[in-house]
Amino acid sequence: MQLIALTFTSPLVPDHVTVLDATGKFVMPGGIDPHAHLAMNGLGMETVDDFFSGQAAALAGGTTMHIDFVIPVNGSLTAGFETYIKKAMKSCMDYGFHVAVTKWDEVVSKEMEIMVKEKGINSFKFFLAYKGVFMVNDELLLEGFKKCKSLGALAMVHAENGDAVYEGQKRMIELGITGPEGHALSRPPSLEGEATARTIRLASFVNTPLYVVHVMSIDAVEEIARARKTGQRVIGEPTAAGLALDGSGVWDPDFITAAKFLMSPPLRAPGHDKALQAALSTGVLQLVGTDHCSWNSTQKALGMNDFRKIPNGVNGIEERMHLVWDIMVESGQISVTDYVRVTSTECARIFNIYPRKGAILPGSDADIIILNPNSSFEITAKSHHSRSDTNVFEGTKGKGKVEVTIAGGRIVWENDELKVVPGSGKYVEMPPFSYLFDGIDKLDAKYLSSLKAPVKRFKSTA
Amino acid sequence: MQLIALTFTSPLVPDHVTVLDATGKFVMPGGIDPHAHLAMNGLGMETVDDFFSGQAAALAGGTTMHIDFVIPVNGSLTAGFETYIKKAMKSCMDYGFHVAVTKWDEVVSKEMEIMVKEKGINSFKFFLAYKGVFMVNDELLLEGFKKCKSLGALAMVHAENGDAVYEGQKRMIELGITGPEGHALSRPPSLEGEATARTIRLASFVNTPLYVVHVMSIDAVEEIARARKTGQRVIGEPTAAGLALDGSGVWDPDFITAAKFLMSPPLRAPGHDKALQAALSTGVLQLVGTDHCSWNSTQKALGMNDFRKIPNGVNGIEERMHLVWDIMVESGQISVTDYVRVTSTECARIFNIYPRKGAILPGSDADIIILNPNSSFEITAKSHHSRSDTNVFEGTKGKGKVEVTIAGGRIVWENDELKVVPGSGKYVEMPPFSYLFDGIDKLDAKYLSSLKAPVKRFKSTA
Amino acid sequence: MQLIALTFTSPLVPDHVTVLDATGKFVMPGGIDPHAHLAMNGLGMETVDDFFSGQAAALAGGTTMHIDFVIPVNGSLTAGFETYIKKAMKSCMDYGFHVAVTKWDEVVSKEMEIMVKEKGINSFKFFLAYKGVFMVNDELLLEGFKKCKSLGALAMVHAENGDAVYEGQKRMIELGITGPEGHALSRPPSLEGEATARTIRLASFVNTPLYVVHVMSIDAVEEIARARKTGQRVIGEPTAAGLALDGSGVWDPDFITAAKFLMSPPLRAPGHDKALQAALSTGVLQLVGTDHCSWNSTQKALGMNDFRKIPNGVNGIEERMHLVWDIMVESGQISVTDYVRVTSTECARIFNIYPRKGAILPGSDADIIILNPNSSFEITAKSHHSRSDTNVFEGTKGKGKVEVTIAGGRIVWENDELKVVPGSGKYVEMPPFSYLFDGIDKLDAKYLSSLKAPVKRFKSTA
Amino acid sequence: MQLIALTFTSPLVPDHVTVLDATGKFVMPGGIDPHAHLAMNGLGMETVDDFFSGQAAALAGGTTMHIDFVIPVNGSLTAGFETYIKKAMKSCMDYGFHVAVTKWDEVVSKEMEIMVKEKGINSFKFFLAYKGVFMVNDELLLEGFKKCKSLGALAMVHAENGDAVYEGQKRMIELGITGPEGHALSRPPSLEGEATARTIRLASFVNTPLYVVHVMSIDAVEEIARARKTGQRVIGEPTAAGLALDGSGVWDPDFITAAKFLMSPPLRAPGHDKALQAALSTGVLQLVGTDHCSWNSTQKALGMNDFRKIPNGVNGIEERMHLVWDIMVESGQISVTDYVRVTSTECARIFNIYPRKGAILPGSDADIIILNPNSSFEITAKSHHSRSDTNVFEGTKGKGKVEVTIAGGRIVWENDELKVVPGSGKYVEMPPFSYLFDGIDKLDAKYLSSLKAPVKRFKSTA
Repeated sequence: MQLIALTFTSPLVPDHVTVLDATGKFVMPGGIDPHAHLAMNGLGMETVDDFFSGQAAALAGGTTMHIDFVIPVNGSLTAGFETYIKKAMKSCMDYGFHVAVTKWDEVVSKEMEIMVKEKGINSFKFFLAYKGVFMVNDELLLEGFKKCKSLGALAMVHAENGDAVYEGQKRMIELGITGPEGHALSRPPSLEGEATARTIRLASFVNTPLYVVHVMSIDAVEEIARARKTGQRVIGEPTAAGLALDGSGVWDPDFITAAKFLMSPPLRAPGHDKALQAALSTGVLQLVGTDHCSWNSTQKALGMNDFRKIPNGVNGIEERMHLVWDIMVESGQISVTDYVRVTSTECARIFNIYPRKGAILPGSDADIIILNPNSSFEITAKSHHSRSDTNVFEGTKGKGKVEVTIAGGRIVWENDELKVVPGSGKYVEMPPFSYLFDGIDKLDAKYLSSLKAPVKRFKSTA
Repeated sequence: MQLIALTFTSPLVPDHVTVLDATGKFVMPGGIDPHAHLAMNGLGMETVDDFFSGQAAALAGGTTMHIDFVIPVNGSLTAGFETYIKKAMKSCMDYGFHVAVTKWDEVVSKEMEIMVKEKGINSFKFFLAYKGVFMVNDELLLEGFKKCKSLGALAMVHAENGDAVYEGQKRMIELGITGPEGHALSRPPSLEGEATARTIRLASFVNTPLYVVHVMSIDAVEEIARARKTGQRVIGEPTAAGLALDGSGVWDPDFITAAKFLMSPPLRAPGHDKALQAALSTGVLQLVGTDHCSWNSTQKALGMNDFRKIPNGVNGIEERMHLVWDIMVESGQISVTDYVRVTSTECARIFNIYPRKGAILPGSDADIIILNPNSSFEITAKSHHSRSDTNVFEGTKGKGKVEVTIAGGRIVWENDELKVVPGSGKYVEMPPFSYLFDGIDKLDAKYLSSLKAPVKRFKSTA
Repeated sequence: MQLIALTFTSPLVPDHVTVLDATGKFVMPGGIDPHAHLAMNGLGMETVDDFFSGQAAALAGGTTMHIDFVIPVNGSLTAGFETYIKKAMKSCMDYGFHVAVTKWDEVVSKEMEIMVKEKGINSFKFFLAYKGVFMVNDELLLEGFKKCKSLGALAMVHAENGDAVYEGQKRMIELGITGPEGHALSRPPSLEGEATARTIRLASFVNTPLYVVHVMSIDAVEEIARARKTGQRVIGEPTAAGLALDGSGVWDPDFITAAKFLMSPPLRAPGHDKALQAALSTGVLQLVGTDHCSWNSTQKALGMNDFRKIPNGVNGIEERMHLVWDIMVESGQISVTDYVRVTSTECARIFNIYPRKGAILPGSDADIIILNPNSSFEITAKSHHSRSDTNVFEGTKGKGKVEVTIAGGRIVWENDELKVVPGSGKYVEMPPFSYLFDGIDKLDAKYLSSLKAPVKRFKSTA
Repeated sequence: MQLIALTFTSPLVPDHVTVLDATGKFVMPGGIDPHAHLAMNGLGMETVDDFFSGQAAALAGGTTMHIDFVIPVNGSLTAGFETYIKKAMKSCMDYGFHVAVTKWDEVVSKEMEIMVKEKGINSFKFFLAYKGVFMVNDELLLEGFKKCKSLGALAMVHAENGDAVYEGQKRMIELGITGPEGHALSRPPSLEGEATARTIRLASFVNTPLYVVHVMSIDAVEEIARARKTGQRVIGEPTAAGLALDGSGVWDPDFITAAKFLMSPPLRAPGHDKALQAALSTGVLQLVGTDHCSWNSTQKALGMNDFRKIPNGVNGIEERMHLVWDIMVESGQISVTDYVRVTSTECARIFNIYPRKGAILPGSDADIIILNPNSSFEITAKSHHSRSDTNVFEGTKGKGKVEVTIAGGRIVWENDELKVVPGSGKYVEMPPFSYLFDGIDKLDAKYLSSLKAPVKRFKSTA
C-alpha cells in the first residue's frame, strides 16, 4: 500500500508519503456498483468488457468495487461459481458475487447453502423474465425465498412478467415491428409493475427482505413505496441509465444507435426518469447500480432483423459516479452525504461489508476517491475505458469529476491516467445476515403468536 | 302466464286478474345472482343444493335468475356443458352459464368458440387458485384473455395466488394448525391483492374487460379502484357473505360451526366487510353475487382433521336480496335505485341480457318482486329453503322483506309460501359483446397507431 | 306542444303529426349542462352570452336545459336571486339555478333556507378561490356545509387554494410574466388537489354530499377516487374544455388567442385531459359540465398587460354534447347508455328532477335529441351560435352530430336551423333531498352511536 | 470534563480515568429530543416540569439534548425568546430552541431574521390548530414559508385543521360529551390528514423543506409518503406516545386517568400506532420526538367539566429512548444503527448540529450513553424523574435499559442515580441551511427555467 496524505492546507508530511491536494474537493469512499455483468455469456457470445477492462473503466470513474452475477451452468450454482472465479482472475479491483437461481431441486437448495457457508455469497437473484431461459415461476420463487431467509441471504429479483413479455414479443413480430423499438413496445411499464407487486407480496408472505434490481418505471416505484410505507423491507435499485436517459433512443433510424439503448427492463418514456430521481432523493429507492453489460455494435447487429436477438445491455460502470453526481447532487436533489450513501455506503451495508467498504475509517479498505465539484466531464466512446465501440451516454456533459481514485491504498486513477494491474483485485466475501435481517426472527415470532394456538375442537352433533 | 295487477290504490281490474296490493312497498325487477354453484361436484361429493332446491331457495329470497359455472369434464368444455345442461333440467327458475377454462390447447380454444357461437355462453372463468386442480398459469391466462376478447366474451377470474396458498397450507399443517382457521390463515388478503393486481394488468395488456369474482378484501378493492381510475374496464363482485360477515367464525371451537364459514377466498378480518360495503356504495364495485355452494355438516366433516379436505363454500342465494337491502339500503349507504342496479340491472347489462332481464319494461320477462321495507326478516337454517342443515347467516335479523316473487309472470312466492315446478326454468342464452366491449376496437386502433409505423432502418458503418 | 313521431320504419301516423325519421340514429334525452354562466357580470362587464343567446347555442348543440349560478348581490342571496330571475326572462330553454354563498351571517343562513323552501333551489356553491372576491374560509365552509345538510341541499365547491393562487399571481407579476400563461403558471394542479382534498374531508366531517365543479387535473381526480373508494358521496364534474383541450393554448404569441383559453382552474398540461376522460369512463367522475362563460376578444383584452385582469372563462354550452360523443363514445371509452348518463340523466338525478328531465318516459318533459353517429361536426366561431367572436375549440372536427333538438315538445333545431322564442324557457324548481341524501340520517345515527354514551366519571383521589 | 474509558475487555488505563465496562452493551450517542415543552405556560398555569426537572428526567432516560419551543409573547418573537432564555438558565443539559410564529407583520418578519442571524435559531413552527390562540391561516403560512426559505430555516407545522376542530368541539359539547373522550372525538384523524396534505402542498408551492411535528395517524403518514415518493423534502416526526399507545385511555371512567392521556393531535384508535412504527422502520418517518408537556392531576382537573379546559400534553422525555428501543429494536422492526439514527443522528443533521451532536467522533460533544439490551425497564410515576404525579406509560415494561448517561463528558446517570447540576446545560446555537436546503436553489432555478421567458405578444386584430 502506498502512503498517501490528503491535504487541504500546507502539508507537513514525510518525504515518502504521496501528497494529494484536495482543497475545494470532496474526499469520499470509492463507489460500489451493486449490479454489473462482466464477461457474461449470452447468445453464444461474451460481453466485450471482461473483469479487467470493465473494472479498469470502473476505476477511471471512481468505482472501486463491483458485485457481479454468477450465472449457473446447466442450473448448477457450483459450476457457475467456479466459472466466474476463473473469469475474475484478471481483476484489477475488488469484487463480490450474487448468484442467480434458475431452477429448483434438492441439489440447488444444497448449493445455495454451500455458497453462503463456504463461498462468501449472501444474495441470490431470481429472474421473472426471460421465459424459457432464466425465468422462474412463483413456486420456485417461494422455495427460493424460504431458502434465502433460512440462510440470511438477500433475495433479489428481475421484476418483469416473462409470460406477458413473451406474448408482447410475439405481438410485435406479428405486427411487423422487428426493430429495436419492438423490444420496448413488447414490455411496457405495467409488466414491471406487475412483477414488482407480485414479488413484494410473496416476499412479505415469506417474511424475508427483498432487493428489486434495475427499477426502471413509475409503476415499480409505486409498488416499492406502498410496501415501505407498511414497514416491509424492500430495497429498490435504479440504474445510471434509468436515471439519466429516457427510452427515445430505440426509435433512432440508425440500427446501431437504436440497438445500443436496448436493455431489460427497457428505458422508459420521459417522466419515468424524473420519478426515479425523485424516489432516490427521499429514500424510496436506496442505491444506484448500472446493470453494465456491454456488447459492441457487431454483437448488437445479431438482431438486425429481429429485436429478440439483439443482446440486452448498456454500459454504465464508468459513468455511474459522474452521472449520479450531476443529476442528483449538482441539480440539488440530494446532498453530498446522500451521494456517498447511494453510491457506496448503503451498498456496503446491504451486502454486509460495511465498514470494510463504503467508509473512510481506520480499518476500512483504503478505497477512496477525490471528486472535484467544479470540474466537468464529457462522456464519449472515443475516450471511455470500456472496450465497447459505443456509449449510451454519448455526448453527455456535466459538472463534477472524479480526479483521483485510490483502490486498496494505491492511486489507480490520477491526471486522467489509469495505473491498473490485472490480478490485483481481490474477491470480497460477503457474510450473511446483513442489517436487513435484524429482527426478522422477532417478526416471525410475532406472526406465529398472532396465529394463536390451534383451536381445540369438538364435533357438534347438530 | 298469470295476469297480475300491482295496485297501490283501489284496483279496477277484471275478475281473472290476480290483484296484489303493493301499497307502501317497492316493486322491482327480480334479483339476478351472477355467481352460484348448484349441483357442483367436488371431493367426490355433490353440493346439497341442486338446480331445483337452490333455485327454490333463490325464489323465496327474491332472486329470479342465477348464473352457474360449467366445470369442464377432464378439461373438456363441451362435456362439461352437456353435464350441466342435464343438471339444470330440474330448474324452476331461469338460469345461464359461465364456463370455466382449466387447461389450454387447440381443442379448448375451439370449444370456447363453439360455446359462444352456438351455446349461449358469453363469459369464461379462470382460476388462479386451486393449484393442481383448476389453477392456470399466466401463459394460459393470456391465451384465454385473447380468445375471450376475440369472441366478445367476458373474462372472469378467481383471484388468489395458488402457489402461495399452497405454500401457506403446508405451513399451517407443519405448525399443527389443521382446523378451519388454518384455511383462512393460509391465504391472507395480500394473496388476493396480488392476484387481482396481476390479472388486472394482464387484462389491460390484452385490452379486454375483466370481471373479478368474489372480491373479499380491501387489498383487492384497492387494485380495482386503481385500475378504474385510469379508465380500465374492471368489474368487481362482492358476495353477500363478504358484505355481511367477517372471518371470526372459523375460530369457533365447534368444528361444524367453524367449518360452515369456510370459503375461498376466506371471509376476512373485521374492516374488510365495511370496505366492501363502501366500495359498493360508490361504484368501485358494481354488483353482488353469492358464490352459493352449499355443503352440509356431514360433508364439511370430511375435513375434520385437515382443513384442506373441508369442501369450500357458503350459502347465500336465498339471503342475498335481504342482506343487501338491510346492510346497504336500510343503513343508508345506497339508494333504492342503486339497490336495483347492484342486485339485478347491472348484472343483466354485464351479461348482455338487458332489458329482457333486470328491468320492468314492456317486452321484459315478467320477473318481479315486491319488497316491503317495513317488514322484517330473520335467517335460520330451520326455515330456509336450502337443503343444507346450516346457514352462515344463522340468527341474522334485519329490515326489508321480499313478500312476493313473480318469475316469468307467475307468482312463485307469496305469504311465505313457495309454488315452484321442476323443469319450469328456462336456459337463458347470453349473447357476446356486451356494453363492456363497446369501443374496445377503437382502443385497439388507438394502441396500434401509438406504436407508429415500424421504423425504416439502415445499419451504420460506425 | 307539437305532435311528433319518431320512426325507424314506415310510419303510420295521422297527418297532423310531424314525422322524423331516426333510422340509424340515436334518440335520447336532451342534454343538461349542470354548469354555465349566462349574463354573468364581472370586472364591470357582462358576458356576451345572455340567457337567450347562450341557450340558443345550447339548443343547437343538443342541450335542452342548463343550470346557472346565482351570484349574490352584496352578499345577499335574495337580491342575487331576483337579479337572475330577471336575467332569465328572455330564456328560450328550461333552466335552474345553483346559488353561490360568499359571506356568512344569520341573514345568509336564513336566505339559504328561503331559497330551498320557497325558490326551488337545492344546491349552493362555495368558492375556495378568488381571494377578496368570492373566496370563503374553512369556518364559513363548515357553516355552509352544515346548513346545506340540514336543508337537503347539495354543497358545491370551486376547489383551488385562493391564498396560494394569490401568492402565485404575485410571483408571476414579480417575475415579469404578465401574459395569459402567467395565469396557468400561478395556479398549478397541486393547488386544485389541495382544495379538493380539503373540501372532501370537511364534507366528510359534516357528513354531507359534495359536488366538485370543473375537475381539471389528475390531482383532483386522485382525491375524488380516494374518497369514493371509502364510500363517501363525492360527485366530480369535468368540463367539455377540460376533456377536449390541454393548456398549451395560453402560450400562443397572439394575445387574443392565448387569452381565450384562460379559465379557472386552468386547462392543464397534456395528460390531465386523458386522465379526466379515463376517470369519466369508469365512474370516478359522474357528469360533464361546461362552465360556459363567454367573453369576447375586446373584453379579454382588458388584461392585455396583466393576466389578472383578463376575464376568466371559455365557451362550451353548444359544443359539449358533440365533444363528449366524439371523445368518449366515438373513441370507445364509454357506451351510448353511458353517454346519456353523463350528459343528462345523472345530472337530473343529482339535482332531483329525474324523471321529469334526463329521461324519455311518459310524463317526462319532451326534451329529446336525435344524434346521428355517422354525421360529422366542425366547430368554428364563424358558425357557432354564441355571440362570442372566438371559440376555444376552433377547428375541431369529429364524428356524431345532433341533427334534431326537441325542447318541451317543440322542434327547435333541425336541418341546421334554430327556431327559438325568447321567454319560452321555464324555470325548473329543484326539490331538496336528492338520492345523494338517502340514508344520510342513518349514517348520522351510526356515527352518533359510535360516540357511545358520555362516560360517567369520578375523580380519583390519586 | 471527566476522563472516561469505555472498555469491553481488560482495561489498561491510567488511574485518574474512570473506567466503564460496556461488555455486551451498546455505546451510542446520547438521544436528542426534537420536541419538548418545558416550563410552558398555558391556561394561566405552567407545566410541572421546568428546564431542570424535565432535563434531569431526560438524562435519566438517555437523552442528552432537547429542543424546546419559544412561544411568542403577544406575538413578539424577541420577547418570547428572552423569556425562554431565562426559563432555561437552570438547565442541566444542552438545549436548543425552535420559535413559534403566531401572527404576521413586518415586525415578526424582521424578528425571524434576527432569530436566525443572531440568536442561533434555524426552525420556526406554525400551528394550524388552536383556533383563536396560535392558529395561522394559509396566507400567514405562505408568508412564513417564504421567509423560512430565504433564511434557510426549517418550517415546522402542527397539522390539524383548527376550524374543523373548533366545530368538532362545539359538536361534542352540544351532544353532552364533556369528558376527555370528547377531545379525541372532536378531532378525528381525517383533520390531521387534511392539514398535513395542505401544508405539504403549500411547502411544495414555495419549494421549502417541511417538518411535520407529532405525526399521529395513518392519514398523515399517507400524505407524507405520497410527497416523499415524488422527491419532496418532508420530514415526519412520530412521538414516543404515538408509537407506544393507542387512544383507548381517554375512555377510562376515572377522570384523572382519562385526562392524562389527552394531547393534540390525540392518540388514535389501535392500528395507527402500528402504522407509525412501520413508517418509521422504512424511512417514511425519520426521527422520534416526545411533545413532552407535563401537567399534573390538579392541573388536568381544570377541565373536569369541559375537556376544552384540560391542558393538553403527555410525558415522554425520560421514556422515549427506552420505548423506541423496546418497540422498534427489540421487536425487530429496526436495526441498532437505525435506532441511533432515529433517536439522535438524524435530529442533529436536520437541525444542523451534526457532528457536534448525534455522533461519537473526535470533536463531538461527549454526549454518550450505554444501553444494555439484556436489562429491563419498568415505567411508573413512583420512580420517574418528572415532577408529574402521573405517567401515561404507567406499568409499561420492556427490554433494553440505559445504564449510563454521559453528558458533555460527565457521567450524570449511573447505577440508577442522577448527578446533575442546575445551570450546567448550554444553549446550542443551530445554524441555518441544513442539508435539507442543499440544492434548493437549483430546484428553484429549474423551476424558473421551466416557466420559460415571458411570451412576446402582439394583439391580433381578429
